[in-house]
Amino acid sequence: MKNVVVVLSGGMDSTTVLYSLLASNKYRVTSTLSFDYGQRHSKELECAAATVAFLRTKGFNITHRVIKVPFGELTYKSALTSEVEVPEGHYAGENMKLTVAPNRNMIFVSIAASLAITENAILALGVHAGDHTIYPDCREEFIKAAEKAVKIGNWDSENFEIITPFLHRSKDDIAEAGKNAAEKLGITPTEIYKRTWTCYCGREKACGKCGSCVERLEAFEFAGIEDPIEYE
Amino acid sequence: MKNVVVVLSGGMDSTTVLYSLLASNKYRVTSTLSFDYGQRHSKELECAAATVAFLRTKGFNITHRVIKVPFGELTYKSALTSEVEVPEGHYAGENMKLTVAPNRNMIFVSIAASLAITENAILALGVHAGDHTIYPDCREEFIKAAEKAVKIGNWDSENFEIITPFLHRSKDDIAEAGKNAAEKLGITPTEIYKRTWTCYCGREKACGKCGSCVERLEAFEFAGIEDPIEYE
Repeated sequence: MKNVVVVLSGGMDSTTVLYSLLASNKYRVTSTLSFDYGQRHSKELECAAATVAFLRTKGFNITHRVIKVPFGELTYKSALTSEVEVPEGHYAGENMKLTVAPNRNMIFVSIAASLAITENAILALGVHAGDHTIYPDCREEFIKAAEKAVKIGNWDSENFEIITPFLHRSKDDIAEAGKNAAEKLGITPTEIYKRTWTCYCGREKACGKCGSCVERLEAFEFAGIEDPIEYE
Repeated sequence: MKNVVVVLSGGMDSTTVLYSLLASNKYRVTSTLSFDYGQRHSKELECAAATVAFLRTKGFNITHRVIKVPFGELTYKSALTSEVEVPEGHYAGENMKLTVAPNRNMIFVSIAASLAITENAILALGVHAGDHTIYPDCREEFIKAAEKAVKIGNWDSENFEIITPFLHRSKDDIAEAGKNAAEKLGITPTEIYKRTWTCYCGREKACGKCGSCVERLEAFEFAGIEDPIEYE
């Protein structure tokens, strides 16, 4: 069984990756890592912590670390980390580019890979097909390039790899995978998804209107499961 | 003129890169970045800040940021205190290895590249030939792989590149380059090097005995300039 470090944002995608790996027989999840980069939707960090706490009550011996990355100082032009307004509407197109934080995934991958190399583990990310057109660092090309840089940049890294189970899957597929993982693990999809956060706006309840919310709601409908979080 | 972000450790190599770029007509240094990763020789961070402060008095409009990277949470120590099985191979090495964080340069490059992309700049690093045998992430192969990952991972990054003026140069060459840059800028080498720190021991004065100190002293002798810092 391969050790795996999972980058766990607390959103729907990475949380589903985590549950899917736990439901498989191929991997042993040792650690999860979340990044506090000054995101408006810092509620996702609470979700990530709650997910790991829940899994520990279920007997999974998994650690969780929150790593601070001072993005505000680096990417002062991005809506995710600055005063720039989060765009509404469907999760595509020019306006969503405002939510790009330059080199975000490479920073996350680099830090997570440091832990993975330490733990003789591989790395799992929750990037999915819907991200590709907006975020260049969610494309397979980037994942491969980053993986190569890690392998070249570290001794004893022959076994290192980055796995992205949903790289070519849609959000609908992810909801479906979550449903299946829940079944294998003997829990309900609600147990998984009540501890996830997707909305980009940093308010008490999810807005239900931003690109992320719209896509999430559609995916739950597709999978025929209920979205247990509250919407405005 | 190309904008450049310089990773400035406060050591002799990266400080010389900074002055050499300022002395050239090809580049405009916009920003410098230092990393506080819990290093013993944190005195180098004070040197980095002092260098930029000095340059600002000389009319160079350069910013300086110190970015904290929580390596302590990622390195071997954290693996030791968790329930995770630590591979023996990683421990076979010397005590020094305990203080080295895997993937260190990739983390630094990723964070600095984020700022560089924001500022439409390229990135300059002070790695030099002497580092190659110890640190895999100081080799040209790694620099090229990291540069490629940044270009793939960001839109509008056609102009991005990582320059490493001393990648194939010795410490002697670096001292020589510092002397030349000082001459062009109308300052003395002492003005440059009194604000640098090379010793790996975290004491008040440089030890003059560790590998770094010995190499530094030889380089100054080679270049025929005086080393202005105090030794024990």
